[in-house]
This record gives sequence, structure tokens and C-alpha cells, in this order.
Amino acid sequence: MNTFGHILRLTTFGESHGPAIGGVLDGFPPGISIDLNRINRDVAARRPGTDLTSPRKESDNIEFLSGLSHENITLGSPIAFICRNTDTREDHYESLRDVLRPNHADYTYKAKYGLREWRGGGRSSARETLARVVAGALVSHILDLYNIKIESALTGAGNVWQEDPFRQAIDGEKNPKIFLSDYTKQKIIDNISAARSNGNSIGGEVCVIITNMPTGLGAPIYAKLQADLAAAMLGINAVKGFEYGTGMSSARACGTETADSFRCETITTKLSGTDQPGPIPEMHTATNHSGGIQGGISNGMPIYFRVAFKPTPSIATAVNTCDTSGKEITLKVEGRHDPCVAVRGKAVVEAMAALTIADHILLSRTL
Amino acid sequence: MNTFGHILRLTTFGESHGPAIGGVLDGFPPGISIDLNRINRDVAARRPGTDLTSPRKESDNIEFLSGLSHENITLGSPIAFICRNTDTREDHYESLRDVLRPNHADYTYKAKYGLREWRGGGRSSARETLARVVAGALVSHILDLYNIKIESALTGAGNVWQEDPFRQAIDGEKNPKIFLSDYTKQKIIDNISAARSNGNSIGGEVCVIITNMPTGLGAPIYAKLQADLAAAMLGINAVKGFEYGTGMSSARACGTETADSFRCETITTKLSGTDQPGPIPEMHTATNHSGGIQGGISNGMPIYFRVAFKPTPSIATAVNTCDTSGKEITLKVEGRHDPCVAVRGKAVVEAMAALTIADHILLSRTL
Amino acid sequence: MNTFGHILRLTTFGESHGPAIGGVLDGFPPGISIDLNRINRDVAARRPGTDLTSPRKESDNIEFLSGLSHENITLGSPIAFICRNTDTREDHYESLRDVLRPNHADYTYKAKYGLREWRGGGRSSARETLARVVAGALVSHILDLYNIKIESALTGAGNVWQEDPFRQAIDGEKNPKIFLSDYTKQKIIDNISAARSNGNSIGGEVCVIITNMPTGLGAPIYAKLQADLAAAMLGINAVKGFEYGTGMSSARACGTETADSFRCETITTKLSGTDQPGPIPEMHTATNHSGGIQGGISNGMPIYFRVAFKPTPSIATAVNTCDTSGKEITLKVEGRHDPCVAVRGKAVVEAMAALTIADHILLSRTL
Amino acid sequence: MNTFGHILRLTTFGESHGPAIGGVLDGFPPGISIDLNRINRDVAARRPGTDLTSPRKESDNIEFLSGLSHENITLGSPIAFICRNTDTREDHYESLRDVLRPNHADYTYKAKYGLREWRGGGRSSARETLARVVAGALVSHILDLYNIKIESALTGAGNVWQEDPFRQAIDGEKNPKIFLSDYTKQKIIDNISAARSNGNSIGGEVCVIITNMPTGLGAPIYAKLQADLAAAMLGINAVKGFEYGTGMSSARACGTETADSFRCETITTKLSGTDQPGPIPEMHTATNHSGGIQGGISNGMPIYFRVAFKPTPSIATAVNTCDTSGKEITLKVEGRHDPCVAVRGKAVVEAMAALTIADHILLSRTL
Repeated sequence: MNTFGHILRLTTFGESHGPAIGGVLDGFPPGISIDLNRINRDVAARRPGTDLTSPRKESDNIEFLSGLSHENITLGSPIAFICRNTDTREDHYESLRDVLRPNHADYTYKAKYGLREWRGGGRSSARETLARVVAGALVSHILDLYNIKIESALTGAGNVWQEDPFRQAIDGEKNPKIFLSDYTKQKIIDNISAARSNGNSIGGEVCVIITNMPTGLGAPIYAKLQADLAAAMLGINAVKGFEYGTGMSSARACGTETADSFRCETITTKLSGTDQPGPIPEMHTATNHSGGIQGGISNGMPIYFRVAFKPTPSIATAVNTCDTSGKEITLKVEGRHDPCVAVRGKAVVEAMAALTIADHILLSRTL
Repeated sequence: MNTFGHILRLTTFGESHGPAIGGVLDGFPPGISIDLNRINRDVAARRPGTDLTSPRKESDNIEFLSGLSHENITLGSPIAFICRNTDTREDHYESLRDVLRPNHADYTYKAKYGLREWRGGGRSSARETLARVVAGALVSHILDLYNIKIESALTGAGNVWQEDPFRQAIDGEKNPKIFLSDYTKQKIIDNISAARSNGNSIGGEVCVIITNMPTGLGAPIYAKLQADLAAAMLGINAVKGFEYGTGMSSARACGTETADSFRCETITTKLSGTDQPGPIPEMHTATNHSGGIQGGISNGMPIYFRVAFKPTPSIATAVNTCDTSGKEITLKVEGRHDPCVAVRGKAVVEAMAALTIADHILLSRTL
Repeated sequence: MNTFGHILRLTTFGESHGPAIGGVLDGFPPGISIDLNRINRDVAARRPGTDLTSPRKESDNIEFLSGLSHENITLGSPIAFICRNTDTREDHYESLRDVLRPNHADYTYKAKYGLREWRGGGRSSARETLARVVAGALVSHILDLYNIKIESALTGAGNVWQEDPFRQAIDGEKNPKIFLSDYTKQKIIDNISAARSNGNSIGGEVCVIITNMPTGLGAPIYAKLQADLAAAMLGINAVKGFEYGTGMSSARACGTETADSFRCETITTKLSGTDQPGPIPEMHTATNHSGGIQGGISNGMPIYFRVAFKPTPSIATAVNTCDTSGKEITLKVEGRHDPCVAVRGKAVVEAMAALTIADHILLSRTL
Repeated sequence: MNTFGHILRLTTFGESHGPAIGGVLDGFPPGISIDLNRINRDVAARRPGTDLTSPRKESDNIEFLSGLSHENITLGSPIAFICRNTDTREDHYESLRDVLRPNHADYTYKAKYGLREWRGGGRSSARETLARVVAGALVSHILDLYNIKIESALTGAGNVWQEDPFRQAIDGEKNPKIFLSDYTKQKIIDNISAARSNGNSIGGEVCVIITNMPTGLGAPIYAKLQADLAAAMLGINAVKGFEYGTGMSSARACGTETADSFRCETITTKLSGTDQPGPIPEMHTATNHSGGIQGGISNGMPIYFRVAFKPTPSIATAVNTCDTSGKEITLKVEGRHDPCVAVRGKAVVEAMAALTIADHILLSRTL
């Protein structure tokens, strides 16, 4: 239950206020040179402590314990890494020992496990996602072999939104960008700052486009590429929805509007597999309402999807709730929390997308 | 890749125009009496051949091959079942042999596997979902032991929508109904009929509410209950998005609006597990923006979610596309297709939800 | 729990006296032409009804339901097959309804599941192994691509034994045969016939040699090639032990006797993997005490192993036991049973070995 | 491929001469109090540095990183632990950089992964088994809840053997001991000491008896209890064979000799499961040739099995082999190696048995 992936499997561990969090990434191909600077860059993108995020100063000092040679070449064995927890300030949480915070995992953990680590959310803390970002940065080295690019942006927060951020992708461009005007971008930042000032929090939306996708990744039934992406995204704390291609609005469309006509490009061979008949024509589609996936399998066009994050439930405004004895109390969270988790969630979204795609690349080799 | 579930595992097989489709459901507890009439009722709810669906006459005659005693008691061994394919009309598909239908799996299957069953979509046909409905009806017998109810409705299609179908659920009612006015219901039917008449198709939205949920189902990280539900839903053909609780609109909310205050109910013990400390207070929440899941684990409140289906890509209106040699052609699909797949998709949504919940019930016993 | 394999996964179903037994083989690569005659030959090799086996006349008429094209080319989708149960003679088992047969699964099934199919052993019947033989015959088409050969022999039964059947393999020959003298072969047959005449049963030993093994199959830790082979063999009814290479007698050896010196053959590239450094020298070993596996991974030398089958517990000689109410009874089994299950077990051993090797071939492609 | 178990899953990581080795144990029930002293005792039993083992001084200082509360109560989250590598002496291995040691994983790793950690065997080192012993000590706390006892002994080494160590178990005793005379015990020790003095190594045999087994653990087909035990044992470095109950000699027995008659004990209910019919008579068997498992499922009688370890391939006597360029060389290993790996392997055997049984206990709760 703490493992993600079919063949390329990430197992994470660690409570927010325990000794360390970390992960084990198994199934990583050997012989790939890992750029540690790149990993540190990705980790920094997720790190709290900036203007728009929690002021918690996480050390985020990643130590690799296995799976890499002295020259940082992957060995084919599991890559394990840990990050010590520092700046944990248990006293901040002492007052929360018996509180059931609204919309948090406090009650459900207590109900499921009979006990819980009340310090900093324990296992449910967003700190766990650091391990995913490290793993995502590792597997990005696999995506590089195919030149696959994952781009994401925060396209909305609270009451400010970019209209139609996927316009280029829908129009069938092969290297579409997420559309986000400078004006909207600034308004989003202002919105988040205002939420922080008001002791409130706001939700946010992250848009993602994946380009240079190989054709043939995914599977027809339960491991559809979109199903694995959806599970990856809904497995991120605070995510409440996922839609790809024309998404939720597909329900409002009609068939004549959304047909993506095929156009022939060239003759090519498929990604992998030793027992296949010869070359097939490579196609693209004139438009891309499908979102780059048809029948659960990538068609080579850009994949794009959208993820919604709820507002952080921990806010500095008083709310009513109960403690574990059932007594009603008023709670005002004094911890160091994010006014908009989507800001940091963006790095986690990219990491989980990278893990999903890389897993399917390895899976596709088994045919 | 053709198996769904952690402990209660459904493996399906079969091409649309092969000899049969079927499934094997492994991990089903022994000693449960199966009501075959109930299974037939659920199968009938998914069956094409009605006014709003494809006129294909599927026989849908389910034969159980194993796992049941002579008195239809589950044996604890895998329950296998098949349904022969009839009314397959291969000649209808002869003209599609080399065509790459837009938004279908034709191209991606060809690209991934090097060959494909061009008759009726092969493995990608919606016919496969019949196996899921049978499995869903089987596991509903497990849900009955807990009195869990899954209710769903088609709440929108094309340009007609029910506003706020989850109003009761959000308000914190314990046995909420999906709100759907008679007026909207009729307009949805009219919309679908019109699409059929026009040789077009429309998308649709299915809303689901699950009540009497046990507390403590799910898992903190990758097997979050919402992640498994999302994968279950995005694994259904034509589904483009999933959102639970306040869903995509969470991104537009702020923290003060969406806090679900806890209220104490009574003292109880948890669902399962032998090694737990004593009773904990049972809680409910005053509102239910969370959608019945917090930290990936059910909190006992109703779960509600929404699924968007795209318009059927097979329509009787001409569209441009290519054949497998790359030649551009005009396609007008003469087969027997659904004007709105969400009509029949509803039964599949319920089945996949049932499989997901039942799997987590069994999993929760391992603690 | 009814599924075997990592990537190439066989799920079987069916009770001995239910409507049918069968299997679903998922993960089979597309584009491979299946020879149905070959499958029938392998099935025939396992069939009872010959002189040395149970006189039960199994129909063994395999029907493929999915996964094959009209020309018997694999589609990449799950290959499902069933075999109807005939000649089931329930009356033969009526007297066994409440009996707990010694060394059978009667008591343990009853204890685990609370109920059991008492007709013909239900799920524990050797009939289930038919599905394995079919699957083994299917995956042999994958082994053919590598020219891998699996050869087996019944090398002992009761008090007759072939000494040192692996002498050629140990000596480092590249295409060793199992040594079995005509004299011993005949004595084994005589032994089995005598057991049948005496209303008794005897155990047997099956030896296996796999040649033309690719180098690099297996994994270092829990999926060692020998661990997966051991699980495959101990998963066969009536098997009580597994040993490979120098086997159980390794415990009596010393290090100077069993060292397999490497000898260089030529320069080659490895089996699979896209991200590897260049060619490495191909080696063989001067002797092969290791049994073709070192560190859990095949080294290209022949793999050889031995499997012990216990005597059939159902015999026509009276034994004491209990019924399900606890009353002591005397049991003399009148059914149609094998005097030496190893005779038919040989085909199952080969099938499970083929499944294990083919699974690791596909796995090795993911590196 | 580095994960063991169905529900209770151990993932290990680490190379012998990297920064650390460790493991993550997922699926452990919450609320169990862990005795760290006990873990240290088990770790000490495996530790090299004694008279009969390698003189390598492993620190074996286990650090727990997650999954335990401040009071060492399990939280239900993954339990991660690491052990830093010290006393690694890379210079000892410098001369082995290009050598392919006979019977070691050097060649197969190189062939599979294209590169390898030549220091101390990397991932194939016996050091990895330390993580298994820690995990085994953790899950022993689960076995304690059922009062299950695992006892093992080194019953043979080189040319000295205990005859019939399972005599009590076969005779149907409920609390049998492994029979090992003081005379044989001393001879085994003498044999190992002599091997060390002679720069040689010898194989060894470990016998195991598990008592107080619950009835109903295991599964009918591929996850037979004996199949999972076999995989667990063959997954241990240097193990060449596994046999349970009457084992390899079953092949030489006849059915009249080995029937285990049932005897009624009392009326009881089964281990787990909520949906079962009422009490069934509890049985024992008058003898126990079956080895406590029938039809893949435990029958409540003691389980006993035997494991054979090969002689350590690293010896201080010169042997011929090749280097990675194909050049023939003479090798005399000067490292610190065990004269009989079975001495320390015993602790690993117990740990893997404990993991297997505990996994099946949790699995049995899902019925």
C-alpha cells in the first residue's frame, strides 16, 4: 500500500516527525548516469520556505544509500535514499495531540490504526511527497532517453483562472505550451499572498503537458495510461480531481465536434518488442481532443491533463471541531502551513507523471 | 494488465467478436450465497438494445464455470464466468478492416501490438465491460454484509445539466440522494434521442453516492481510496475525468468555506483488526466537502463522486481520417452504436465502485 | 492466490467436478503463431487413461476463448481457454462426502473455507494442472524463439532409481541428456504396474534439464531464478521437494570439489536492455555444479533440477481415518487414481518450468 | 524483484560496500509493541566474527527510520530500517575487480546489468540477509500472538550428519524437537573448524520445525504454503534445495506407509473469516508424513522442512578461472569468508520462515 508502479516500483516510508523519510526505487535499469544536481533542483522546486509556501525550513538533504556506483551510475539494484527530518518543532503540535482537525487524516488514521502519530500529521504529512520528487527526478533520466518533456503550470488559484490553458494542445500542435498570460500569473500570486495575509487558504489547479510521447505506452483495460495517471494524481495529498484531454467538459460535447482525424506522417517501427510484424505508418491527429491517449494507449500526440488541489485545511482562522474524546472545541492552527498547496504540489504532480510514464516505458519492452 | 484489485482481483478476457468474453474473480470469501437473479438484473441494466442505446442484441447469457457450489454458495476458489458472443455481424466491420477510426483504439492497438482484431474493436470494445458488471454484482453480496449502498444517476448529457446534484451530500446528510429534477431527467432523454436521430453522439456525466460506508477503508499513500476509485473510473472506456467531494471546483474554494467540523456520535470499535487498542469515539462531520474520504481513508460519511464520459466516437456522420496505409478517407460508421455511452456506462461505474470498495473491505481485515 | 508469474501471468480456475476448468494467460507477446497441434500433444502427455495412470477418461478438449486471431496469432490480449469436465461420476464420490481422506486437502479446505467441494477433490484435484499444461504449451512458443529446450524424465519410482542422472550436466556438457538406462526405465514401469495391482501407490522423481538458456535471466534477491522454479514446483500437487545443481548433496560437499571454473568463449552482447555498456566476453564453466544459475541469475549453462512426488494418497487399501463429525472410520478409495502421480506430473513439471523461464525472459527485457 | 511477500511485504536494498543496507517492511499491523532487544538478539545470531564464521566485524547497528512510535509501538505505516556498512576494506577487493570468481554472481551480474559492484559482491553479498533477519525479528512479534514457535538446527555439515532429525515430528508429536545428538553436534563443529584450517569450506543442512501452527494458512494452488516456503528458502544465498515433510524420500515411499490418519480432538472455530458456517471438529493426525501441510494449507500439525546450503565458493585454496577479459587466471581468495555459510544461514532461514508464516496469517484474515 506504500508502493507505486508495476515494474518500476517506488516504495516510500517515513513520518513527518520521525527520524527520516525516504524511498526505495526498484526496477531502475542499470547503466544510467545520474545527475545529482538535477535531483537537487527538482527537490528545491518542492521545498517550502518561499514566499508562497509554508515557512517550514526543510533540510531536504538527500542521501543515497544504494543502487548507485561510486560514479553515480545506476547498478540495476534498488535505489534507496533518505532525508533526515529537522526543524520538527514538536511543541507546535503538542496542542494538537487530541484534536481532530477538519479535513485532515487525524480521525481516519485513529479509526483505522487505533493510534496515530499526531506530530505533524505523521505519515499523512505532505513531507512524504519529497520522496516522490526524488524518485521523479531519478526516472526523468529514463524519460530523457526518449526526449520526453513534462511541463506544468499553476493555472488557477481561488477565484482567478486562466481560460483554456490547453488551447494549443487541443489544436493539435506537436509541441504545445500551456497558455498562461502574465496578467493571470500575477493575479494568482496576488491571490495566494492575500490568502496568507487573511489567515486563509485557497485551492489551485495544475495543468500538465507531456510532449514527445512514444506511441504504444499504456494498456487496454485496467492499466490504461489515463487510469494509472489518475491513480498517480489522486494519490497526491489534497488532490480532488483529474481530467485529461477534453476532460469533464467531454460530457457536454458531441461526437462531431471532438473527432481527431488521423493524418499519416511516415513509416516507422514500434517502440519495442521483438516478435512484431514490420513497419506501420506513423500517424498524428489533426486535432487532439483525445489528449494523446486512445484506448488506454498513447498515440504519440501530446498528453495533457489537469489536477485540482483543495485549499489547505490547516488555517489560522478559528474553526469548530472535536477532540478525540468527542468534546467540541475551536481550533486555530498556528503551525507553518501553505496558503495554496498546489504551489508545491506542482513538483509532485510532475514527479508522479514521470514515474507513471517511465513505468509504462519499461512495461512496453516486455511485449 | 488485465487484472483489477489488490486482494479481490478481477481478471477479464475476451474480444468483442471472438468466441466469448468473461472474467475470473479471485479472492472472494467463501460461504456467501449468490443470488443469480440479482446478477441478471445488473447485467440487464447494462445491456444495449433499448431506446437510448446501441441496437446490438447482446445475449448476455452468463455461464458460471467455477467457484460456486451446486447451491450457488461461494467456495473461496476463483469464480469464473463467460458469456458467448452472438449477433456479431462481421460483415458490418469488413469495411473497417483497414480504417483508423478517430478517437478509437484502432491506431494505438496497431502501433502497440503490430496487429489488431478489427472486428468490433476487439479487446477495446465496450463489450468487455459486461465482465465487470458481472463481477460488480458478485461483490455487491459482500457490500450487503455491511449494508453499503451505491446509487448512481445520469445527471447530464450534451448541453443539459442538473445543477448541484450533490447538494444533500455536501450538506452533511447521512443518507443523501442524488438530486435530479424530473424536468432535467426528461431533457437528458430528449437530448440523447435527438443525438441518435441526427447521426451524432453526446457525452454524459454520471454521479455516484455511496452510503453506509465503514470507517477506515483505504490507505494513506498510493492506495488512497480516491486513487483506487479514480483508477477504476478512468479504466472505463470513454471516461475522461473523475472528481470526488468538492472535486475540480475545490481549486476555486478557500479553506474557511470547506472545513468539515467533526461531531461526536458514539463510542464504537473499528471495522477489523485484532491487535488494536480499545474503542474510539465515532464521529460524523457537520458538512461533507471532503466527500467521505480524509487522508485516503473513509471517514464513515457518504462518498460521492462524478465521472465524465466523452461522446461515442462512432457516429453516422461523415468524418475524415486515414486508413492503415496512410491514405486519407471519409468515414461514416454504419455499425450499431450508442448515442450516449454514459447511459450504459452507469452500470459499469457502479460495478467498478463496488469492486473497489469490496477490495478495500477485505484489505482492511489484514491489519 | 490463483495466479502464477510476474509479467506473464497465468490465472487458473475450476473445480474437478464443476462445469469446466480453465486458465487466463496474460502478458503474452503479440504476433506469435500458435500451433494448436503442439498444445494437444502436450495435453495428451498429461492425460490419464493409459496403463500407468488413472483410468479416468478426461476429454481434455481445449477451447480457446480469447487472445488468438482467426489465424491463431496471439493478439497481445489475455489468452483464455477452458476444458469442460466430463466423466465426472459423482456417485463415486458420494461415499466420500463426509470423509477426511488422509494426506488429502479435505480437512484443510473444510477448516479454511468452512465448506468444500467434496466431489473429486474440487479445486485441489490434479485436474487443475491441465490448465498449467495448456499454458506451458503456449509459452513454449516463446522459448522456441530462443531455442530453449526443456527435457524431463521419470528417473525413479518407489525402490528403483537411476544413479546420477545428471552426470553429463555436472561434467559441463553444453547439451547434456538425462541419463536413464533402459534397464532402470523398465524396472520403474514394472514398479508402477505392481503398485497398481497391489492397490498401493508409489512416489516418483522427475529430473529436468533446460538447455540453450540465455545468460542473465533471474534476479539477485527474492526472484532468484531458482526461487521461482522452486515455487513453481512446490506449487504442483504432491511435490515434496526441489533441488537444483548439486542440490541436497551440496550440504555434504566441500568448496574445492564444486568450483566451476570459467572459460571464455567469445565476445557477445547481452540478452536485452537498451541502456547497457558494450559487449562482454561470453563464458562457459568447465563443470556445472552450479546448475546453470549463479547469484539467482542464469549463466548460460544448462539448468538442471530434480523434483520429488509423494505416493498418491488415494489407494485401494484400507486405511484408518475420521469423518467430518470426528467418528473414526476405515477408508478404501474406490475411485480411479494414479499408482504414481509422477508419471503425469512430469508434463506439469515441464509446463511450470516453461512458464517460469518465459516469465523471466519477458522480465529481462525491462532492464 | 527486491520485495518478498503478498500482504506483509519486505523490500530490501543495499550493496555490501555501499553506504548502508536496509529494508522496508510494509503491511505490518498497528498497535504491536516491538522489543528492540529481541531484534538485537536475532541480529547477533546471524553476525559474523565468531569462531565458525567470517571474521568480518559487521557493526550490525540497526537504526529504525519509520513505522514505530516513540514508545516502539507499530503505527501501521512502513517500518524502515538501515544498517551502515563499516569495516568494508575495499583494498581486499581491489584485486578482484576484474576476476570472475567461480560459483559467485560476478559473471551473471556483469552479463545481466553490464556493470557490477565488484566490492564485496555488491548486492549479492550475504550482507543483504541482515535486513531479512531484522524483518524476521519484527514479524516474530506477530507469530507470538499465536504462540507459533520456529526452531532450527544445523544438523549436518560436510561428511557428518544427524540421522533422522525429524523422527519426533514424523511420529505425530505435537511439540516435536529436532533430534541432534551431542556427539553429532560436536562433530559438526569440528568439521567446520577443520575446513577453516584447511583453507576450504563445507556445505551444511538446516532443519526447521514450526509448532503451534494455526489451521488454514496457505492457499490451494500457486501460493501453497510449501511453495511460498520453498521460494523463501531458495531465495537465500547458497541454498540448493528444499524439502518438507517426508521430502525427497517421498519419491521412494509407497502410499500405505505414509498415510496420516485423522483423529478428532475437539470442536472449534476457524482462524478467521466472518462469513463462515459454524464450528468444525478440530483434528490432528496420528502421524505427520505430510509435514503439517495438506493441499497447500496448514492442518495444525507441526511443519518441518530441510534446507541444503552449498559450500562457500570463496576459499583460500587456489582455483582456476577467468577474468572479465577472458584471460585464464588462478584465484586464491584472501577475504574474510565463512567456512560453512549454513552456520549463519540458520538465522536467515528462521527469518524467512517467519516472514512467510506471518504473511499467510494476514492473508487468512481476508477470507
